[in-house]
Amino acid sequence: MRNFLSVKDVLPLQTALALAKEVKAKPFADRELGRDKTLLMVFFNSSLRTRLSTQKAALNLGMNVIVLDINQGAWKLETERGVVMDGDKPEHILEAIPVMGCYCDIIGVRAFAGLQDRDYDYREVILNQFIQYSGKPVFSMEGATRHPLQSFADLITIEEYKKTPRPKVLLTWAPHPNALPQAVPNSFAEWMNQTDYEFVITHPEGYELDAEFVQGAVVEYDLEKAYRGADFVYAKNWSAYSGAQYGKVLHDDRRWTVDAQKMALTSNACFMHCLPVRRNMIVTDDVIESPASLVIPEAANRVVSAQTVLREILRGLL
Amino acid sequence: MRNFLSVKDVLPLQTALALAKEVKAKPFADRELGRDKTLLMVFFNSSLRTRLSTQKAALNLGMNVIVLDINQGAWKLETERGVVMDGDKPEHILEAIPVMGCYCDIIGVRAFAGLQDRDYDYREVILNQFIQYSGKPVFSMEGATRHPLQSFADLITIEEYKKTPRPKVLLTWAPHPNALPQAVPNSFAEWMNQTDYEFVITHPEGYELDAEFVQGAVVEYDLEKAYRGADFVYAKNWSAYSGAQYGKVLHDDRRWTVDAQKMALTSNACFMHCLPVRRNMIVTDDVIESPASLVIPEAANRVVSAQTVLREILRGLL
Amino acid sequence: MRNFLSVKDVLPLQTALALAKEVKAKPFADRELGRDKTLLMVFFNSSLRTRLSTQKAALNLGMNVIVLDINQGAWKLETERGVVMDGDKPEHILEAIPVMGCYCDIIGVRAFAGLQDRDYDYREVILNQFIQYSGKPVFSMEGATRHPLQSFADLITIEEYKKTPRPKVLLTWAPHPNALPQAVPNSFAEWMNQTDYEFVITHPEGYELDAEFVQGAVVEYDLEKAYRGADFVYAKNWSAYSGAQYGKVLHDDRRWTVDAQKMALTSNACFMHCLPVRRNMIVTDDVIESPASLVIPEAANRVVSAQTVLREILRGLL
Repeated sequence: MRNFLSVKDVLPLQTALALAKEVKAKPFADRELGRDKTLLMVFFNSSLRTRLSTQKAALNLGMNVIVLDINQGAWKLETERGVVMDGDKPEHILEAIPVMGCYCDIIGVRAFAGLQDRDYDYREVILNQFIQYSGKPVFSMEGATRHPLQSFADLITIEEYKKTPRPKVLLTWAPHPNALPQAVPNSFAEWMNQTDYEFVITHPEGYELDAEFVQGAVVEYDLEKAYRGADFVYAKNWSAYSGAQYGKVLHDDRRWTVDAQKMALTSNACFMHCLPVRRNMIVTDDVIESPASLVIPEAANRVVSAQTVLREILRGLL
Repeated sequence: MRNFLSVKDVLPLQTALALAKEVKAKPFADRELGRDKTLLMVFFNSSLRTRLSTQKAALNLGMNVIVLDINQGAWKLETERGVVMDGDKPEHILEAIPVMGCYCDIIGVRAFAGLQDRDYDYREVILNQFIQYSGKPVFSMEGATRHPLQSFADLITIEEYKKTPRPKVLLTWAPHPNALPQAVPNSFAEWMNQTDYEFVITHPEGYELDAEFVQGAVVEYDLEKAYRGADFVYAKNWSAYSGAQYGKVLHDDRRWTVDAQKMALTSNACFMHCLPVRRNMIVTDDVIESPASLVIPEAANRVVSAQTVLREILRGLL
Repeated sequence: MRNFLSVKDVLPLQTALALAKEVKAKPFADRELGRDKTLLMVFFNSSLRTRLSTQKAALNLGMNVIVLDINQGAWKLETERGVVMDGDKPEHILEAIPVMGCYCDIIGVRAFAGLQDRDYDYREVILNQFIQYSGKPVFSMEGATRHPLQSFADLITIEEYKKTPRPKVLLTWAPHPNALPQAVPNSFAEWMNQTDYEFVITHPEGYELDAEFVQGAVVEYDLEKAYRGADFVYAKNWSAYSGAQYGKVLHDDRRWTVDAQKMALTSNACFMHCLPVRRNMIVTDDVIESPASLVIPEAANRVVSAQTVLREILRGLL
């Protein structure tokens, strides 16, 4: 593997899952693989799970790790070409990226959607600039439109907890006070669409996702029908994708909060969320604290997905 | 040892001191003990000595270290249960703690007293949540009411510099412009009370400490009597503990500043302070710069106390 | 080598260049040299290249690395003696420096000129305090008046790309919106003056550098004459050095921007800059993106200069 940006980079999924299983069973088996190799983690946005789990994964592989928070202790970066740089940004990303590439062997990048310009966000400008200019393998630690390390960990978790070969997996929108990107639901849909699960998406009208990610998934606007028989309920907020509404919070209707009443409609469904989660907005205290909640094992599998991806990239460097 | 929160976790002190001596004599002898083990250091507050000395201690033991500054590059954490999280805190500590526990083997936590609510502070809510929810050994890098790695380093230093078997150790309040927690004096008293030293506490009226920490120590309000014959003068500011005054600065009376005149009353006492220290508030330039000042060897022993504690926790994981 | 503050610490340059060549050819050959040795990197100012390249250099040598951003997560430092510390700075550098020295084997320090007080800046107060009080070898990661790791990397790059034994090297001032220190041009001049190159400095009147750094270099105010026949054009902005103008931006005259027209006067000169660079102020997009631009190989050589210096300091510790 060279870069890791979406599910396409690890197909077929059965192979990816087999590799993940190996990594989880023997996390220190490849300690020599990363020797003298340095991972640079570049954050344009906040992070807890990704920051810690990716470091842990790299350390398990014997790598050195350097963490760079672009907005803390480094220089602010200009991203547009042709600008006369007489403002507050002392460095251009066209220099900064190849420079970063000089000091490491693999680069992880987190760069969220700005939610101002859909076309700009959906072109994944920053991730693609890193691929084009760094000279090093690049993996997404959540881009503008996808969060593939999260989706991979989600898939691993579902595989570990599913009680039927083809579970019904429900992705449900849930309310949130702020405007959030579509990266997690987009990515989750993209991965689910590569499985043979029964995959259903539910959300209020107006919160339709990009058709390219939804693909053949069933979109069910009736909450009761959506929940009925579900084996997994995957909650997430996102802002509007469509047209002029892009990046907007249309409403934060609490009828979409995941609660015990809705969970009672399911087939004893497990509850999932990528975290961080707003309690009593996205999900009630009792549901997230119930035995059906998988949020912690799901987060723990972030080490497994990151280590599996890093291992394949390291093998590609041999 | 599982967790390290107070002197109770390393009793008897003679054993703890013997272990510390081993560590100081051969800092790299246990380089294999920490192999493939990751220390996560979580800071809710600023740190210089603890940040550096604990990293050094862990690196000496061959561990990997991940540092997380909660207020820099991570998500702000909600700490109360039942809240509708529609404000500025995107993550709940009830998720964040078990998640952190997934990505490491041992957790160090710094969480100062808020000084708003004595009962809340003295319950050590955050440290106890880490113990309850992280699933991993937890040690204090200064909690709301104790700073045991500091007190352990203080004890090691006194043992190294004492000229009589049972020195007189004086803990004196000293002025400071801001409201500081009682963690350092509480903890120092708790450790001194486990020794056979002559232990005296002096402070202005109104700055009485919690009786649980003072225990059998002599409290001497007369400054001259307090200093006379002292072998060690340990200065520290703290805010009021009592009742409605909790967390308040009652005054910053410079008569309590440690100066050459007071030191002249002692038995050539060594001067100690945990640092950072406000010069010419807590102590005059000439006293802290005199040969009697132990502030640097005391700080250096922070590596020893941290490494001794980490070593015992690592042994507990075997 | 004990400390590394200027070119004087690595003379003669032929030896330094030979050591750098060894390091570049076999970056992992001295992996055992840094075993159990800890590098502490202390930043009083922002950094991208220095932060990453110095870490990479230390990791290549098998060292442990601790990064401390003084203004993030540590305590603000008082630097003047005799002050009653009742303000916003809780710690004095006279304690902080020896404390830092306790927790590491080598210290790198970045402390820019404040540009308020020329005498204070040119005495390199902070670097010299680290040398005086830390008890450990200290190297400059850019001081108030020099940036020797940059100059060393610049020299390595010129040696790699020069097409004649004694190339003409032009250091040119270029416009910038803010007041910048003289550290990079001072240091570059100091290193060039140790070579047998033809070394020319050009800048607008009023931007004269300190004569101690200029030494025997030719200062040419006529831009056309300066550029003609140059093999390397090294651009950099700096604020005024002279008298009452110290630290001021006299103007940001764009006639000094490095552009294709000026580069056409040269002998197919390579373009160099230490980065970060303000595009279309210092240099036009087309020049920095041309094949003649060496900014990326120059940045890559920062690992080589840092590793060469660290290796010599480590050898001095044996």
